[in-house]
Amino acid sequence: VNGHIVKAFSEELATLGHKIAAMGGLAERELADAVTSIERRDLALAGRTVAADLEIDEAGRDIEAQAILMIARRQPVASDLREIIVAVKIATDLERVGDLAKNIARRAERIIENHPQRAMSGFVRMARAAMQQIKDVLDAYSSRDTQKALAVWRADEEIDSIYNSLFRELLTYMMEDPRNIGSCTHLLFGAKNIERIGDHATNIAENIYYLVEGEPLSESRLRLDDTETGRPARPVDADRSA
Amino acid sequence: VNGHIVKAFSEELATLGHKIAAMGGLAERELADAVTSIERRDLALAGRTVAADLEIDEAGRDIEAQAILMIARRQPVASDLREIIVAVKIATDLERVGDLAKNIARRAERIIENHPQRAMSGFVRMARAAMQQIKDVLDAYSSRDTQKALAVWRADEEIDSIYNSLFRELLTYMMEDPRNIGSCTHLLFGAKNIERIGDHATNIAENIYYLVEGEPLSESRLRLDDTETGRPARPVDADRSA
Repeated sequence: VNGHIVKAFSEELATLGHKIAAMGGLAERELADAVTSIERRDLALAGRTVAADLEIDEAGRDIEAQAILMIARRQPVASDLREIIVAVKIATDLERVGDLAKNIARRAERIIENHPQRAMSGFVRMARAAMQQIKDVLDAYSSRDTQKALAVWRADEEIDSIYNSLFRELLTYMMEDPRNIGSCTHLLFGAKNIERIGDHATNIAENIYYLVEGEPLSESRLRLDDTETGRPARPVDADRSA
Repeated sequence: VNGHIVKAFSEELATLGHKIAAMGGLAERELADAVTSIERRDLALAGRTVAADLEIDEAGRDIEAQAILMIARRQPVASDLREIIVAVKIATDLERVGDLAKNIARRAERIIENHPQRAMSGFVRMARAAMQQIKDVLDAYSSRDTQKALAVWRADEEIDSIYNSLFRELLTYMMEDPRNIGSCTHLLFGAKNIERIGDHATNIAENIYYLVEGEPLSESRLRLDDTETGRPARPVDADRSA
């Protein structure tokens, strides 16, 4: 009987893992579509992207419901409990990635209206970096790969740095011509949304580390590395220095 | 023995409740200090506010650790499990409120530099409304008061509406004089942070509703009310229409 229960529990955990992977796929796609809708000035795609966010929210609720049911019925402890809790946390982060992608799509019309074309390249570069981060961190989760998770955690610096440049660039366009102010402000918020998507990728990376190593990332050797390199445990708000 | 376990569990739940109340108090204070630091041009206070956020993060980790321990040791089901899960969710929202308040404090220097004084009144009004929301929703949690939680949930509209006006107002100042662009952009991000603090208050309100009523707010009669009034279940991004 015990063997049966253990098997049922592993199967449920595997299902939970598949659901996270599927939800992650939806979030990646929503972000890609939001950015494409702006690049190609495709408002119909922007509208579909906003609508698609409901699907991600539903996937998040489904994962949470399964997790609560598993805790109540299987009463897991130690690493089994950690698996479930981390799954819920990752789902929460992916749900927020979806929300942020939706916000970008919602701004598409205002951004497209009147933005200086040269402002797009930094925005698109930043978006591609964030998409890669989401993809890599989901791979790291599937393969329980701490090294890959740490690589994602470290690469967030690059997104922050692109954001920082883009912030200054957009302010310049606004100062050059007041007609740029509206669209550049929306583009700035869009860029900030992408920067926050990067933060969610690092949150997920931290959770993978915790899941595999059994201790939080911030309490471990990386905190020492931070002191050495001067990089703070949490990325500072990049535009602070702009 | 069973009576003993039940009593121990209720005591642990009460402790968890006290910890949430204390964490909420820290978040309220951090937000108040962030806004005061800008109003009074007090950069030392802004610095202390940024530093104080570590305390909120620590409180959040403590609540989560206790919750995991309670689930593992007491193996609660039904409403007991709901109590614990809702506590963790509220702690997550409060932690984000702290992060957002910290971000406002971080921008204090850039905002103070050069903002048009008339821009402050909308910002301060919005911040006061958000502080009231956090205070009310924490009261609603302590007293398990669904009506009060619903009042918070509905009042978020007001914050969104102030934000919407402020967004347009700030864009006007930027167009009037390019020297306003830097500080007004930071003030706009600060305002957006407050708008998001309002969203976290509504998240907490939704969780209180779920805790007391046993069903999610969005699935219940309020969804019908939304259709009637045309108010969406989630506030739309207010500046979308700006």
